[in-house]
Amino acid sequence: MGFHVDSEAGRLRRVILHRPDLELKRLTPRNKDALLFDDVLWVRRARQEHDGFADVLRDRGVEVHLFGDLLTESLAVPQARSLVLDRVFDEREYGPLATDRLRAAFDELPDTELAEALIGGMTKREFLERHPEPVSVRFHAMEPDDFLVNPLPNHLFTRDASAWIYDGVSINAMRWPARWHETVHYEAVYRHHPLFAGGDFRVWCEGQAAYPSTIEGGDLLVIGNGAVLVGMSERTTPQAVEMLARGLFSAGSARTIVALDMPKRRAFMHLDTVMTMVDGDTFTQYAGLGMLRSYTIEPGAEERDLKVTDHPPEHMHRAIAAALGLDSVRVLTATQDVRAAEREQWDDGCNVLAVEPGVVIAYERNVTTNTFLRKRGIEVITIPGSELGRGRGGPRCMSCPVERDPVS
Amino acid sequence: MGFHVDSEAGRLRRVILHRPDLELKRLTPRNKDALLFDDVLWVRRARQEHDGFADVLRDRGVEVHLFGDLLTESLAVPQARSLVLDRVFDEREYGPLATDRLRAAFDELPDTELAEALIGGMTKREFLERHPEPVSVRFHAMEPDDFLVNPLPNHLFTRDASAWIYDGVSINAMRWPARWHETVHYEAVYRHHPLFAGGDFRVWCEGQAAYPSTIEGGDLLVIGNGAVLVGMSERTTPQAVEMLARGLFSAGSARTIVALDMPKRRAFMHLDTVMTMVDGDTFTQYAGLGMLRSYTIEPGAEERDLKVTDHPPEHMHRAIAAALGLDSVRVLTATQDVRAAEREQWDDGCNVLAVEPGVVIAYERNVTTNTFLRKRGIEVITIPGSELGRGRGGPRCMSCPVERDPVS
Amino acid sequence: MGFHVDSEAGRLRRVILHRPDLELKRLTPRNKDALLFDDVLWVRRARQEHDGFADVLRDRGVEVHLFGDLLTESLAVPQARSLVLDRVFDEREYGPLATDRLRAAFDELPDTELAEALIGGMTKREFLERHPEPVSVRFHAMEPDDFLVNPLPNHLFTRDASAWIYDGVSINAMRWPARWHETVHYEAVYRHHPLFAGGDFRVWCEGQAAYPSTIEGGDLLVIGNGAVLVGMSERTTPQAVEMLARGLFSAGSARTIVALDMPKRRAFMHLDTVMTMVDGDTFTQYAGLGMLRSYTIEPGAEERDLKVTDHPPEHMHRAIAAALGLDSVRVLTATQDVRAAEREQWDDGCNVLAVEPGVVIAYERNVTTNTFLRKRGIEVITIPGSELGRGRGGPRCMSCPVERDPVS
Amino acid sequence: MGFHVDSEAGRLRRVILHRPDLELKRLTPRNKDALLFDDVLWVRRARQEHDGFADVLRDRGVEVHLFGDLLTESLAVPQARSLVLDRVFDEREYGPLATDRLRAAFDELPDTELAEALIGGMTKREFLERHPEPVSVRFHAMEPDDFLVNPLPNHLFTRDASAWIYDGVSINAMRWPARWHETVHYEAVYRHHPLFAGGDFRVWCEGQAAYPSTIEGGDLLVIGNGAVLVGMSERTTPQAVEMLARGLFSAGSARTIVALDMPKRRAFMHLDTVMTMVDGDTFTQYAGLGMLRSYTIEPGAEERDLKVTDHPPEHMHRAIAAALGLDSVRVLTATQDVRAAEREQWDDGCNVLAVEPGVVIAYERNVTTNTFLRKRGIEVITIPGSELGRGRGGPRCMSCPVERDPVS
Repeated sequence: MGFHVDSEAGRLRRVILHRPDLELKRLTPRNKDALLFDDVLWVRRARQEHDGFADVLRDRGVEVHLFGDLLTESLAVPQARSLVLDRVFDEREYGPLATDRLRAAFDELPDTELAEALIGGMTKREFLERHPEPVSVRFHAMEPDDFLVNPLPNHLFTRDASAWIYDGVSINAMRWPARWHETVHYEAVYRHHPLFAGGDFRVWCEGQAAYPSTIEGGDLLVIGNGAVLVGMSERTTPQAVEMLARGLFSAGSARTIVALDMPKRRAFMHLDTVMTMVDGDTFTQYAGLGMLRSYTIEPGAEERDLKVTDHPPEHMHRAIAAALGLDSVRVLTATQDVRAAEREQWDDGCNVLAVEPGVVIAYERNVTTNTFLRKRGIEVITIPGSELGRGRGGPRCMSCPVERDPVS
Repeated sequence: MGFHVDSEAGRLRRVILHRPDLELKRLTPRNKDALLFDDVLWVRRARQEHDGFADVLRDRGVEVHLFGDLLTESLAVPQARSLVLDRVFDEREYGPLATDRLRAAFDELPDTELAEALIGGMTKREFLERHPEPVSVRFHAMEPDDFLVNPLPNHLFTRDASAWIYDGVSINAMRWPARWHETVHYEAVYRHHPLFAGGDFRVWCEGQAAYPSTIEGGDLLVIGNGAVLVGMSERTTPQAVEMLARGLFSAGSARTIVALDMPKRRAFMHLDTVMTMVDGDTFTQYAGLGMLRSYTIEPGAEERDLKVTDHPPEHMHRAIAAALGLDSVRVLTATQDVRAAEREQWDDGCNVLAVEPGVVIAYERNVTTNTFLRKRGIEVITIPGSELGRGRGGPRCMSCPVERDPVS
Repeated sequence: MGFHVDSEAGRLRRVILHRPDLELKRLTPRNKDALLFDDVLWVRRARQEHDGFADVLRDRGVEVHLFGDLLTESLAVPQARSLVLDRVFDEREYGPLATDRLRAAFDELPDTELAEALIGGMTKREFLERHPEPVSVRFHAMEPDDFLVNPLPNHLFTRDASAWIYDGVSINAMRWPARWHETVHYEAVYRHHPLFAGGDFRVWCEGQAAYPSTIEGGDLLVIGNGAVLVGMSERTTPQAVEMLARGLFSAGSARTIVALDMPKRRAFMHLDTVMTMVDGDTFTQYAGLGMLRSYTIEPGAEERDLKVTDHPPEHMHRAIAAALGLDSVRVLTATQDVRAAEREQWDDGCNVLAVEPGVVIAYERNVTTNTFLRKRGIEVITIPGSELGRGRGGPRCMSCPVERDPVS
Repeated sequence: MGFHVDSEAGRLRRVILHRPDLELKRLTPRNKDALLFDDVLWVRRARQEHDGFADVLRDRGVEVHLFGDLLTESLAVPQARSLVLDRVFDEREYGPLATDRLRAAFDELPDTELAEALIGGMTKREFLERHPEPVSVRFHAMEPDDFLVNPLPNHLFTRDASAWIYDGVSINAMRWPARWHETVHYEAVYRHHPLFAGGDFRVWCEGQAAYPSTIEGGDLLVIGNGAVLVGMSERTTPQAVEMLARGLFSAGSARTIVALDMPKRRAFMHLDTVMTMVDGDTFTQYAGLGMLRSYTIEPGAEERDLKVTDHPPEHMHRAIAAALGLDSVRVLTATQDVRAAEREQWDDGCNVLAVEPGVVIAYERNVTTNTFLRKRGIEVITIPGSELGRGRGGPRCMSCPVERDPVS
């Protein structure tokens, strides 16, 4: 069973998705900003849309792993269970009086319920329905509807907390606390789930301990030819890029990283919200992105040294092409008025997921972008996203490829 | 042809809706807040959803007037055309150099195109595609994609800019400038459209000139028995309520107003986002609303005098019942956890439109509220609202009844 | 008694200031933003600092009129009293039930107390200490500490609500409602105060009725030679500039207006927060302002026509020089690091008031800017502003020259 | 040399202050919010005011240690230098390419310059004036005026990052990253400065490693009688209070903690911004604070166990009195209108520093509060704070007592 992702647009073979559940029902107008969402979703409908997304993938021969299952199965492994509970029930979070009791109460849960509580969260009220109240200021000072364990609605976006790059996976240190526990879950899965345990793959980033050297999968494009394109965004830092470069180069898994200096704004949250790959030499790019300063990082003269070459904004595409060993790349930007462009970027117009070279999955709502791509010969399979899209993430955000061929 | 609205839940006979169009395509992540929207909509889908809403009404025997048609037809009447153009092309807005030329350019447009430009707005660039640039600092200083005429996306919510109360209509002074031109359009329609011109009805508020004495239809419930329930909200002021009371009482059209002192917050934008009527004595109410201070306003001892009776919060429902001549009213509040309640209010769970006593139209997404109402004997007809609902307004917000029977 | 302002830097002869009082004590952390202040002031100390400012002016031979006195004396004139009370006690604000009673209660106040209440505001509680509660929903719905009449803390900045330009005064339509009543007060003063009544001067703007064609004195520089420099800012609109141009040109009072296209942001609130004049050909300018697009407005070929010439950003200073009949102007920008420059602009480093050519009053705290000006031969008289400056306005903002010579 | 703080209002013998310097000059309108300041200060004047504060203390016989000196002297100790540089120059912050070179460059600085750079920060531009640019994406991607090392303007508030409680010091884990390095500096000082090294005192919290179990000195009042009063605020967590309780009780240094459940809002940033102690049984309290839920924490039946008693809001003062072994405490709240109270709280009216029982230092601007205290027999020594106060912290915030007697 080989896990490896050798491109952005080669044949996709296996992917992790997360089916929307309790964690999204927790979103309210009041807490959504803290949980990094712009809107609340109608979960039943979002789940239908998501099921449709998974079906499209399966129809294309892609094997789909659901993250909820992976986590549940991992929790059956005692080491995985301990890893997660130790990390979640930290005395620095729950205090010396309550931590052990809470941990013990959760440890009694069967795997399925534990996975649900870890992802969906639990309120004080829900806890008290089954357990006595511990003597604890930390606990007493909570309101009944406060979260004892926070829900993780961003698990929907499986792209970010881990990212496969060639023959290894980066278990990412995330920028915002609302997503830190996602990383813990992926650690448990990749280390202890039977599918991955003992697998022949490397690990590029060892989890949240690297913070504040944060990096998120939405900023990582495995563009092929031993090259990686990284967006240095609000969430992905230059220091993390340097560390990743060291790891990839010393393993011989990659030869070049091109790092783009993105605006540090939520509107440009991740590179893949403004630029993705639809074929071996072809990108779709948001009109409002403009050209960015970039840096080419290569192995240096000495072991563990890096060579860094700065490029002015106008050379951005040239630097990417060079990393691919090409003279130029093809960049598709839908010609539309400034408002339509802004609207479709907002609705993840660029955030498509390639299933094979020249074939991508996109939200149906981004009509202008989709039509534009089709006219340039790209096959666009559309899925509904009236609910899913309220989370501000498209097909690429919602998928974590774990096996993908190179573009031949 | 008698226009009159005698209740909230009696048989609905005629209603004005507005079909989504260009004005909603103008919304972007950047301008949406200024235009009072929380999100951008996929207009093609929103229009389908809206068509479905209109069909449900027609199926129930309700005659549907589309606002775009009403405005177009009104603009064929020279006085209506002048009324609107004079109000829109004001020297204080466009300056002494450009105003006349702009007005003349718009006056050349056929009715349909003019209506579209007035509702959908026009950018400088669009204007320059057909006209030379006027010598004008006001005009020169604009960017090409700036709006020369602002779009009016809130026309979707026909409930607000005018409101029929018994045998007359209130042409409302709106709270926010983004909606002021809607009122102008309604003035043109009610005064000059053949359907209304010379009609036998009264006018309770004479338009935007009453500002800052603002009042919006979403805060007005014609609860029957000569009573009106008003929410004094962020958008509806006590002084406007007093003026409305004077008008209604001196015409003999109503006998009582109950005014609720609502929180002045956007989350409680209008009364009908938290409380509406589903039958002659039955209300649906958001769990998070709580009880509010209220005031009963009745005719005073002398001509034009008013009598005002203050009630503490706990008497809110009693004050409403008294106005209805009842011992008590029935208030339906779905029992659900605090988060679900907040979510469904956000998604307009309470904002239902009654088509006859005990029969309401609601968004399908508010499953908990809808099920709750059904279990209490209310027939709930659902319509999709994944797109429409992004505008934070439900079936009641999107409809302006112009003819409705009393609840017999 | 001739009122006229013929320059920015000629000998200053007469000026209106406003001594801080009750209205500034009303500021709190909670209401300051709505009242357009960034901080609260210690009023007793602010008043001392302001007294020092007035003394410096008097020492330099400038006659100082205090606005509070002018308003009090105006209110002794029945027409002025009526003008103000009619405008403040508007039924659209206070409702049909309370307005007349409130107006009558205020009309009973002696001139001094009335002026204090109009400027300093009055709470419901304060009103009820002396008067019975009127029957009025508008009134009942207020909390005891709500303002019945809003305070006007921005009267401190006498520069804005009116502005003398050559032989006339512009009584300005202000951008934000928090300042609208200031304009009413100036109307009363200029029309009815014995000092001005029947005076031989023109009126360029007739008050708040021009809204939304707003213009504020902080954006107006009377640069001499029949020229006016205007900043088109968040608060001053192009249409108001066009109207002003028409008025000035048809009266023969000016020959040129240069309008600058400023960023529409609070940080660049008024032109004089980033650029003022310190001598007949010399400006002090904030390093962060950059160069701006500008427009030269001159009389057109026909009566009431205007000629508008657009200039690209790099010609900004050239356009100003041309209006002055000069080959070039001298622009002083303190060389300092980006942070120090930003700090001193925030603290009104550029907002100096010239008392004669080459002699300016400045806040002592802007040490770098002041030293820089001194080294270039400008005499800088400093005043303390630890408290005054918390209102984000300097000596120019706090002064309204009504008589100033040209720079000879 | 005994370090111990046995009360809030006993004779003060020794204190740490921090004299304003470069770090405050770094504040700008743009970065101030990120650096937790509401305004920028005129540093020269702020320093004069601060010198006056120090003089008042010295006049009262209090020995004043300046934090800048303590840090400089500590950096002469190699272990302290290493501790700080290791913590600041972390590869996760500066990346694998630049960290060692930056650390080395800083390690070459003499103690004084290093202390200045650590507290005052350093921009990329300043670094490049003396050093070549390292090959580093992290470094290249910075703008010249970006901070390479962030300034620490909050060092001014020496109260927070460490806090002496009876015979030990809590080196606090701070809530916001902008203050994390302050804690590192205090670790270096308390462990390695000759004044403290080997001193006979305990350490209650071991620094930032406890995060997210944060606690800040502004929330800690050593009220005497073996009791501690703690505000659980936006910045001080219940779990940290539990940990502190364990430490204090097992050492026998305290017998009771009373924890108040404060509103989690910036306006109530720390307990000492709304409530402080002016004598052995007397508190000054902000009118707007209201009564709070509280918890009494005492040693439990078994070793390391705690007993927690909940109190409803109305028993807050009773719980404090009980901890002090008193029947009641005296609470002084200036009677003033709601706005004046809010203003003086904003200006640190309650944030006084007692130098002996019944004698406090306060900002002169809080006239109403100061007069009120004087009338109740408290001696109030005033200091100016027009500049200092812009940082939203008063005499208590700006002082860290290291030796204070009990109230006898």
